[in-house]
Amino acid sequence: MWPKTELVDLLGIKHPIIQAPMASASTPELVAAVSNAGGLGSYGGAVTPPAKLRQIIKQIRELTDRPFSVNLFAPAEETCEFSSEQKTLISKQLIKWHNEIDAGPVPEPIPIIGPFVDQFAVLLEEKIPVFSFHFGPAPLEAIHDIHAIGSSVLATATTVREAEILVEAGVDIIIAQGSEAGGHRGTFAVPYEHGKIGIASLVPQVVDAVTVPVVAAGGIMDGRGIVSAFALGASGVMMGTAFLACPENNIPEVYRQAILKSKGEDTVITDVFSGRPARAIRNRFTREMENHRDKMLPFPAQLSIGRVLRQISAQQSNPDFVSMWAGQGVELAKEHPAGELIEKIIQEFKAVTASLQVK
Amino acid sequence: MWPKTELVDLLGIKHPIIQAPMASASTPELVAAVSNAGGLGSYGGAVTPPAKLRQIIKQIRELTDRPFSVNLFAPAEETCEFSSEQKTLISKQLIKWHNEIDAGPVPEPIPIIGPFVDQFAVLLEEKIPVFSFHFGPAPLEAIHDIHAIGSSVLATATTVREAEILVEAGVDIIIAQGSEAGGHRGTFAVPYEHGKIGIASLVPQVVDAVTVPVVAAGGIMDGRGIVSAFALGASGVMMGTAFLACPENNIPEVYRQAILKSKGEDTVITDVFSGRPARAIRNRFTREMENHRDKMLPFPAQLSIGRVLRQISAQQSNPDFVSMWAGQGVELAKEHPAGELIEKIIQEFKAVTASLQVK
Repeated sequence: MWPKTELVDLLGIKHPIIQAPMASASTPELVAAVSNAGGLGSYGGAVTPPAKLRQIIKQIRELTDRPFSVNLFAPAEETCEFSSEQKTLISKQLIKWHNEIDAGPVPEPIPIIGPFVDQFAVLLEEKIPVFSFHFGPAPLEAIHDIHAIGSSVLATATTVREAEILVEAGVDIIIAQGSEAGGHRGTFAVPYEHGKIGIASLVPQVVDAVTVPVVAAGGIMDGRGIVSAFALGASGVMMGTAFLACPENNIPEVYRQAILKSKGEDTVITDVFSGRPARAIRNRFTREMENHRDKMLPFPAQLSIGRVLRQISAQQSNPDFVSMWAGQGVELAKEHPAGELIEKIIQEFKAVTASLQVK
Repeated sequence: MWPKTELVDLLGIKHPIIQAPMASASTPELVAAVSNAGGLGSYGGAVTPPAKLRQIIKQIRELTDRPFSVNLFAPAEETCEFSSEQKTLISKQLIKWHNEIDAGPVPEPIPIIGPFVDQFAVLLEEKIPVFSFHFGPAPLEAIHDIHAIGSSVLATATTVREAEILVEAGVDIIIAQGSEAGGHRGTFAVPYEHGKIGIASLVPQVVDAVTVPVVAAGGIMDGRGIVSAFALGASGVMMGTAFLACPENNIPEVYRQAILKSKGEDTVITDVFSGRPARAIRNRFTREMENHRDKMLPFPAQLSIGRVLRQISAQQSNPDFVSMWAGQGVELAKEHPAGELIEKIIQEFKAVTASLQVK
């Protein structure tokens, strides 16, 4: 029933709907629900330790025998450096907020996530069907190894140039991430300000430049968005925020409520949570931390040093310090189980394409 | 042949394609070519003195008997204030660049454009068929007067809230301006940072909120973009950058060449040219003036004090100081006469809608 089948054929799925990985929001239950409904469920494994990742994959496989993907961050620089003076500065700022909400001591910043090499080894041993990368194409050898086990590689581009770099590295499917998208900007080869292009502009430009399937990501919430993406030349869509209000995921209730009541203008691209730009719902932390930019640690240390503050804030149902990633389509978010959401989108797709018939 | 006809019916046009007004780029020839091809040609009259505006309207009417529109800036605050110290500061900065390219003295800044009331009086006397406003809905009395002569009102919204304000003021058609759009951001009721929403997110949210026709604007360059906009629920499109390489317009050759060779990531939203945020191709002025923000005058004085520098730079085929407004779709710009461009878009529309047929 889909206008293009190159994506579904390549991935062995029924519907060209990829659930965005969403590290720390996705769960085996969400991944399996999406895959069982005919889409591609994705686990955001970027911040998951290798042993835990193996366990997650086992859980997913207990819940579905359909293809799924796991996403890792693949930046060229995995670790970061900072001085003890910098650590003192940010800790002094964070402890004020910690004290305010009784969050205990500020944790030690960790200068590395993953590590990628160990996470990747698990995914390869587990022969997961679809590998997905953010912040770059992953090392050439890794891509070679993925292809050697017959699996596919997705990676994110935010400009035409980035899409070309990914294809040259052997990536099978380009996720064209528009400026609307929630979560971390995938930008890796240009200054990040240059990589904030709306999908209406980005998708046709990328489609014209590469021959592999292009998936539109950013702000797509319903059947209108999918038809729109196909019209622009995409072979499928990636949707994140639309799945955030699903009961199968793992977000704090205060975040879920924010998703259900926020408007398109309530999100902002900010690097204050992690040290890398990402789109989130504005809150006290995005506003106040902005005034203390000079104290920020580089990615990923900034992410780890704020972890406890975010968690305790969420536990108290206080949105002030929670990282509530969301895209600009958030105003259209509705509470549906993932399988029902996919079924609804398919029905909408049919209705919208029918409405476009030239009379 | 169009999936929705509410826009074409209301405006009395054949095709739901509105050429964006583009003050200082549009010409009577461009407006007439678009209207004669069945679209809605628009003259960007914001910086045109009232007497000249009357002459322009006469010229348009000599070239076409089809509907057309004229756009004015309708900000709540028409004038701005600044001290003589501020004027000295910016003049001292600008004179360095003036001297470098032999541009003569820096002109006096003018604290007002229009004035709106006189420009509007001309449009009303001339009974132009379609009035179009940026930076707000225009005064209620003006909208009443427009309806009294049987003409229609378009105005720009960048958020759902702004769309609701416009409809409440009596605006007939909402231009939903996505963050992709070239030129001035129309944002008028929220902090401008909140009004940078991609059309894939903005259009369906606005369509769900208002009952008047919604026109998608921003990054739309070809038939793919139009189908995409209809899929999102729009009743038509506004295209600016796509018409910038048309021979009928009035842009310097150096600007035209920049349009033809720039990429999606080459534009930036900046207020350094006018004092209000607008999307333009990055150049030396957008980069260097950014370091002298503290010297900037408010809108519209900043626009007038930089006028000579922009003009002389353009005359010398030097892109360094020219305001080269463009949207993020610029990479897809091609040189076509306006009528041919519209015909090409219609053929593409038919091909793309046919390709979306559910099999």
